[in-house]
Amino acid sequence: MTSTPIDPTLIDRLAEVAVRTGVNIQPGQQLVLTAPVSALPLVRAVTRAAYRAGASLVTPLLSDSDVALARFEEGQDDSFDAAAGWLYNGMAEAFGDGAARMAIVGEDPMLLAEQDPAKVSRVGKANSKAYKPAMEEITNFKINWSICAWPGMAWAKRMFPELSEPEAQAKLAEAIFAAARVDTADPVAAWAEHNAALRSRTEWLNAERFSALHFTGPGTDLTIGLADGHEWHGGASTAQNGVQCNPNIPTEEVFTTPHAQRVEGTVRSTKPLSHQGSLIDGIEVRFEGGRIVEAKAETGEAVLKELLATDEGAARLGEVALVPHGSPISQSGLLFYNTLFDENAACHIALGQCYSKCFLDGASLSAEQVAAQGGNSSMIHVDWMIGGAETDIDGIREDGTRVPVFRKGEWA
Amino acid sequence: MTSTPIDPTLIDRLAEVAVRTGVNIQPGQQLVLTAPVSALPLVRAVTRAAYRAGASLVTPLLSDSDVALARFEEGQDDSFDAAAGWLYNGMAEAFGDGAARMAIVGEDPMLLAEQDPAKVSRVGKANSKAYKPAMEEITNFKINWSICAWPGMAWAKRMFPELSEPEAQAKLAEAIFAAARVDTADPVAAWAEHNAALRSRTEWLNAERFSALHFTGPGTDLTIGLADGHEWHGGASTAQNGVQCNPNIPTEEVFTTPHAQRVEGTVRSTKPLSHQGSLIDGIEVRFEGGRIVEAKAETGEAVLKELLATDEGAARLGEVALVPHGSPISQSGLLFYNTLFDENAACHIALGQCYSKCFLDGASLSAEQVAAQGGNSSMIHVDWMIGGAETDIDGIREDGTRVPVFRKGEWA
Repeated sequence: MTSTPIDPTLIDRLAEVAVRTGVNIQPGQQLVLTAPVSALPLVRAVTRAAYRAGASLVTPLLSDSDVALARFEEGQDDSFDAAAGWLYNGMAEAFGDGAARMAIVGEDPMLLAEQDPAKVSRVGKANSKAYKPAMEEITNFKINWSICAWPGMAWAKRMFPELSEPEAQAKLAEAIFAAARVDTADPVAAWAEHNAALRSRTEWLNAERFSALHFTGPGTDLTIGLADGHEWHGGASTAQNGVQCNPNIPTEEVFTTPHAQRVEGTVRSTKPLSHQGSLIDGIEVRFEGGRIVEAKAETGEAVLKELLATDEGAARLGEVALVPHGSPISQSGLLFYNTLFDENAACHIALGQCYSKCFLDGASLSAEQVAAQGGNSSMIHVDWMIGGAETDIDGIREDGTRVPVFRKGEWA
Repeated sequence: MTSTPIDPTLIDRLAEVAVRTGVNIQPGQQLVLTAPVSALPLVRAVTRAAYRAGASLVTPLLSDSDVALARFEEGQDDSFDAAAGWLYNGMAEAFGDGAARMAIVGEDPMLLAEQDPAKVSRVGKANSKAYKPAMEEITNFKINWSICAWPGMAWAKRMFPELSEPEAQAKLAEAIFAAARVDTADPVAAWAEHNAALRSRTEWLNAERFSALHFTGPGTDLTIGLADGHEWHGGASTAQNGVQCNPNIPTEEVFTTPHAQRVEGTVRSTKPLSHQGSLIDGIEVRFEGGRIVEAKAETGEAVLKELLATDEGAARLGEVALVPHGSPISQSGLLFYNTLFDENAACHIALGQCYSKCFLDGASLSAEQVAAQGGNSSMIHVDWMIGGAETDIDGIREDGTRVPVFRKGEWA
């Protein structure tokens, strides 16, 4: 391991924020931690911070980009439908027994860009299917969980191809630290203030109880019906185990559940989407009755179509999220090719699985009740940016009256 | 990751031997691979070799020494009884579904030497208990499995403290490659020849059907009764799934199951034992009725006593193995502080769980039958060296007659 040029003090502060404000590990709780092996300095710092906070056991599951590539370069055909179901079942067992979950992302967003999209899709589908029981514990917020990021070298070079490797990594590190508010004097206080600001937005939206949102912008004229009994969330969330966590470090969004049958119109993406190592850009789709009935993309159209065909719910929406164009991540002007960041730079929608959390009294709803109220179900959950400086959004009330929500990309 | 000074061609050849001769992965079979993160170059080579050989999926589970240390340095008291049962259950599920198992070792053998032996023991006990269902699939040879080694830097520095880090690593790498026969022109042919030589030893011992072995040497006068219906094994083994594998790369031993109630006398260890990061040296114990009734050690006596107290079977024997003093690993004169190597330099015994494989028709025996025939049961299986240049061994037949087996450390 080369010694990293990244300031170890800031790595430790990011680890503290991830452990205390992010996952908020509880004394005696196990932590299941996934990360790329290149994130080892942050994995080690998180492990120490979690033990200091009282974790009973920290188990890192480290992935490696060359191991992932080897399958595509050397694997036999039947390999592409295999998945480590045994490992995902183990993770589901851990969450069922109360373990918390942290993910550190930082992989090369274009790792699999040169690979056969059909094989990439088969692997994605096999993994999604095998991971579903564990993912449901997460999407249903049974336990406290959080995602944060490490400035992986390959990722940094994608963002800053003109810089040397150490310079690119240092620049990405700086952006990650700023977005995670660990470059401030008191990161924990900064997060408390930020969470309060996001909460005031969700309280207004929850009081309004819009039945739909109408998005307009270049290439976009989209009406997104909201699920019956939907609830807006943003910033800190309280999981069903009673622990308040910040599922995303960073986060700038407020979000809720659309109605899976009530989305109509056309929408154009405003930023490229990096999905499982492939890039999809210039997406244009048309919805009818909640379902995507026409889809094209300037880049990665084959990957997009494979994604939409994953299952019945993959061509319907599971999330709609509002982010002002003036958000710090948007204003950085950086394109991260990573949803954790890019989704916090623009309003977005997500294909696939909804969060049952985003319903009034969501924790007590059965899967059937969630579906009856319009919540979508799928093996996938893929966010995708549709907002920009020209985005206007109207809230539509039950009686048809309209309230400006966004004008020119900002809260109205 | 610094570029390793180790010849990548030899890494690839070790990976090929580990995959083809070691675990002998089958087309369509999953491979569960554990390794220290420092072994990443070998992990990557093994992954590629396994996919080339037809593996459907290779899942590395990477451990890190700093993560392991963090628990002892930062963890709360209740942490030391926690284990990742969910992960071990997942591994047991994988083996139950037919996955093969490879372990790459290479950790610092003294990683935990400075830590509280009571805490080290609690962690070991919690892990052994949680791992038992998965370990039984291994000890019962339900599936093909294999262990090989990577020259980890910390391990190399323990062996060669006088050398620089790169020099120490290069020297350990050379020893590992030689012991694994990958420094020969045709490693696969060399392994076939070696397996045949070991087989001729086991065929002779299985024809003799000794009821006991009598070991003498400095500080040692020990009679080890052999289990009823015991069978000698060595070199390649055929697992219950029909796949022939070499469980240890390297291996120089032939071994069988002692009778858990029929061991009498005293024995002195001839090499230090590195157990879960602690060193135990200068062991002297006395057996009565198969059980250790007195135990002392010059170094690590507390760890030894904790180990013996793990469970009822921990103070009884589960394996006896014969290795000539002239074996190549013994002749290298190196002390590896690692059982995979040191057990191949000397005759040894193992505390704890027996291999049901080492019984005639072992695969069809129930746990009760194994126990009735004298097979020991425990959460642990810890090998420990008792042979040297002065070791004599007699085979004792049912009728009391004696046959020389070893004289002065060599086959008689």
